[in-house]
Order: sequence, then C-alpha cells, then structure tokens
Amino acid sequence: MGYPCRVRIGLVQTACVDDPAANLARTLAGIEEAAARGADLVCTQELFRTRYFCQREDPALFDLAEPVPGPTSEALAKAASALGVAVVGSLFERRSAGVYHNTAIVLDGDGEQIGMYRKMHIPDDPLYYEKFYFTPGDLGFRAFPTRAGCVGPLVCWDQWYPEAARLTALAGAELLVYPTAIGWQHDEGAEVDAAQHDAWETVQRSHAIANGVFVAAVNRVGQEGEIRFWGQSFVADPFGRVLARASAEDEEILVVDCDLDLVERTRRDWPFLRDRRIDAFGDLTKRLRD
Amino acid sequence: MGYPCRVRIGLVQTACVDDPAANLARTLAGIEEAAARGADLVCTQELFRTRYFCQREDPALFDLAEPVPGPTSEALAKAASALGVAVVGSLFERRSAGVYHNTAIVLDGDGEQIGMYRKMHIPDDPLYYEKFYFTPGDLGFRAFPTRAGCVGPLVCWDQWYPEAARLTALAGAELLVYPTAIGWQHDEGAEVDAAQHDAWETVQRSHAIANGVFVAAVNRVGQEGEIRFWGQSFVADPFGRVLARASAEDEEILVVDCDLDLVERTRRDWPFLRDRRIDAFGDLTKRLRD
Repeated sequence: MGYPCRVRIGLVQTACVDDPAANLARTLAGIEEAAARGADLVCTQELFRTRYFCQREDPALFDLAEPVPGPTSEALAKAASALGVAVVGSLFERRSAGVYHNTAIVLDGDGEQIGMYRKMHIPDDPLYYEKFYFTPGDLGFRAFPTRAGCVGPLVCWDQWYPEAARLTALAGAELLVYPTAIGWQHDEGAEVDAAQHDAWETVQRSHAIANGVFVAAVNRVGQEGEIRFWGQSFVADPFGRVLARASAEDEEILVVDCDLDLVERTRRDWPFLRDRRIDAFGDLTKRLRD
Repeated sequence: MGYPCRVRIGLVQTACVDDPAANLARTLAGIEEAAARGADLVCTQELFRTRYFCQREDPALFDLAEPVPGPTSEALAKAASALGVAVVGSLFERRSAGVYHNTAIVLDGDGEQIGMYRKMHIPDDPLYYEKFYFTPGDLGFRAFPTRAGCVGPLVCWDQWYPEAARLTALAGAELLVYPTAIGWQHDEGAEVDAAQHDAWETVQRSHAIANGVFVAAVNRVGQEGEIRFWGQSFVADPFGRVLARASAEDEEILVVDCDLDLVERTRRDWPFLRDRRIDAFGDLTKRLRD
C-alpha cells in the first residue's frame, strides 16, 4: 500500500437520546453509511453514546463511563475491521475508581487500536461542568499514522488552544480531528449565537492555516436540557477553506474528500513552520508573563 | 487619568510612491486626520516611508534604513505630542553597519517612545526577500501600556504565528497591532486571491478569539512592482468580529471605537487562559516533534 494522498473522511453528526444502546447503534449505522459512501476514516462526535451529561454534577453519572478496551471501543473496532475504515471514536473512559477521562481512540482499518488521546483541556463553565467528570489528560498531544493519513485527535475545548493544534501538527498530524459537543444556551439572541458559532469555526480554521493541515470538527445536534447543540460539523483544508459543513439542526453523515498532498503544497507556499522563533517561545509554558 | 475603557484607534492605510519624504508626509497627514476624528492611538502600515523594497535583493537599499531615534521616529514623536495621540510606527531601522531590523516603535501621547519591537519572524518567499534585509528581532514579544490601553506591536509575517500573539497577550496586551505589507502577486485567479486574503484575516481574527484581545492590522494599497497590495486594514474585537475593514484599492483612514472592557468580559465567558496546559507545552520550543 502506498502512502495515501486522497482520503475520504466521514463525520457522524447525530442527536442523542436517553438510551446509550440506541445512541451507539445510531453512530454505528452512521459509520456504516460513511463507509458505504467510500469513507476511509470516520470520526464520531464527542461522547456520542450518551446525552451531554455534564450539564449537572452528579456522582451517579460516572456509571456511564466504560473501560478501554470495553464494550463501546470493541463495538467501534468491530465496525472498523468489518468495514475496513479507520475510526476516531470518543468515549467516557473509566480508567480506575476516581479517575475518568474524556478520551478519543484511534482505530486503524483492521480494527486495531493504534492510538489514544485523553482530553487535555477541560472546561468548566455554566452547563459544561466537565472538571467534575474528567481528569485532565496525561498523554500529551499526539498523532497516529492510519491508512487514511496521520491523524491527530483532540477534543472539544482543546479546539480553542493554538498550542494543542501546533503540538499535534508538529507530531506529524496531517488532519486534526475534534469530536465536539457545543451549542447555544439561554436566550442570548441571534447575533450573539451567530458570533459564538463563527468564533468556534474561525479558531479551528485558523489551526488549519497556521499549521498547514486539514481540520475536522464533529458536533452533535438537538436540544438537550438547556443546550441547543449547533451541529455544523465541518472539514477545512490547509488554506482554512471550509470544504463542507453539516446542518445546524439535523443529523447528517458528512463525507468529504481530502487531498493530503495539499499539506505539503500549502506549506511550501506558506513556510510558517520554517520560521518559528523557537528560541523565543519558552514563556509559552507560563500562565502569564507578569 | 483613570484607566481607559473606550479607546478610538486610527489605522493609516496609504499607497506609497518613490519619494520617502512624500510617503512620510502622507502618513503624518493620516495621523492628523485620525486624531481630528478623535483617535487616541494611531497605527501606521509596515515600512510606510518607502515602497515595499524587498521584492529584490540590493545592498544599496540599506540606504533606506534610519537609526532610531532618527528623522522618521522624531517626526512621528512630534506628531504624537502635537496631537496628543499614541502612535505605533513601523520603520526600517539601521541599528549598526550590517544589522538592520524591521521595527515598530510605540510612542505615547506625549511623544515619548515607550516601546520598541523588532520583527521576530522574517519571511523569505518570492517577492518578499526579507531575510536579506532584516536581522531577526532580539527583543522578544512585548506589550506596552499607553494612554490608549496596553498595546502589543507585532509585524506582518508574525501574524501567522499563534505563538507570537499568545506571548504578546500573556505580556498584558489588550490590543495586538500588526503593521503589514501583503498583497496578491502573479495572476493566481480570483478564487485563490480571495482564499489568501481570507486566510490572512481569519488567522488574525483567531488571535483575537484565542487570546481575548483586540487585533488591528494595517496594510498598504496599490500596485508596486509585481505585488498588488490588498489593503483591507481591519480591527477585530475579542470575539473575532471585524468591527471595520478598509478598502482593497483606496487609501483610507479607518477610525474604530474599541471598548477595552470587552477583554475582561470576553475572557470571563470564555476562560481559555485559565485552562492552558502549560505543563504540556514544553515542546513548543522544538522545530518538530519527530
């Protein structure tokens, strides 16, 4: 097998119901549909097996977590090998009693788990009480070569951090994948809603531009509690151009062709990585420079 | 004097002719116009005193450089104190025989030079042969409190580097200012032209978003040699929203109100700086993680 140049990426954007088994079946069906449409790599939304439970803090909800390997990772691996597609799957991981993570696994097209990423940046904001549930990741920022290119998994809140994108790109990622759960809340008005969504898409497009990589974000849809998840999963090319964008309201399997040659071609035209002033970046490990 | 909350920023976007004295007069007139329209801080485009001479490598062109302080910095200081406005001015600095910089000075409203920044990231691409002319800066990334808020000067190619924006914001900048000289070249077609401009604006808007700061970019207009400078100087708020954008073809003095309170308000809603994984950012000082 030669090095892949043109890969087809599938993003599975769903709404979630109370029953985890139904959500898992829904996402497995989405992976199957994407594969049938020729996808080489399929990515799930964040924590697709459950409703977004972090809207309140309840110790009983740790019951939703699973070990890895475990039932959900095995179901994804089975789908990957049956369909011959690589998969980036998001999971609520039970690592031990008292240590739970928001985790993404990377499965190659034979079903083998070749990578794991544990969400590094954990939010804690009204309706997103994730610091209660998720221990910050301790695996760092990583990239994994799959049969569909070198994939860098990151998760949701990470998407606001240029450092996360950069470190993952420097590790070799050609495609950054962000399983996500983000939406509108309260009644902030159409203008604020649009500005929030636009900022979210813009900052991720900028990771594509600054690093010369593809970026895929996979979000859920539907009203859950007080959050109206805004969907609009998308793929951007290394120029930051949105190649395709899913619906804001409806479930959708987005299938997008990516020419990975563009990574090298774009970086030749815009050689940002050549000129980084790494001698002057030491203070990036400081909280503030005060 | 209390801490400024609402400041008015002026961006002086001009075309340049062969005669440096005429260009200086043009920019001084622009500063005067911006001040007359109430600006508290006025920013020049990159190397406004000359045509963009880096389209070829010619040792004689080092004659265009000046010491700082020198005639141009003194003219800017005189304007600043006469008009009572802070100024970010871009200069071709002669620091010594053989050491020249692409420099931005920050003058407060009394004309005192309170800051200097020497362009850290130096491009070298067809028609932008800057590595021949400019020694990479050795002052690092800095922010300077002026009467119009805390200003972080950066220059052109820096705008593609999230590290530069971050380090400047961490130093306290509320407003990043990018004097710039960027345009279209050759005949790459309208689609590529639009994508290039959009990537340029997007990556700078993303610095505003990721850091919760205002961003101002000041570009020139007009055809010079093989480059058609694309103007479109703009100011973005901490949400990444473009508050105002100048013409792509015409000279323009853009005057924009910025509510610096938005820096704190935006960072409270989107507390990205709280959650940076500074324990895991050490590899940002590596060229690649291979």
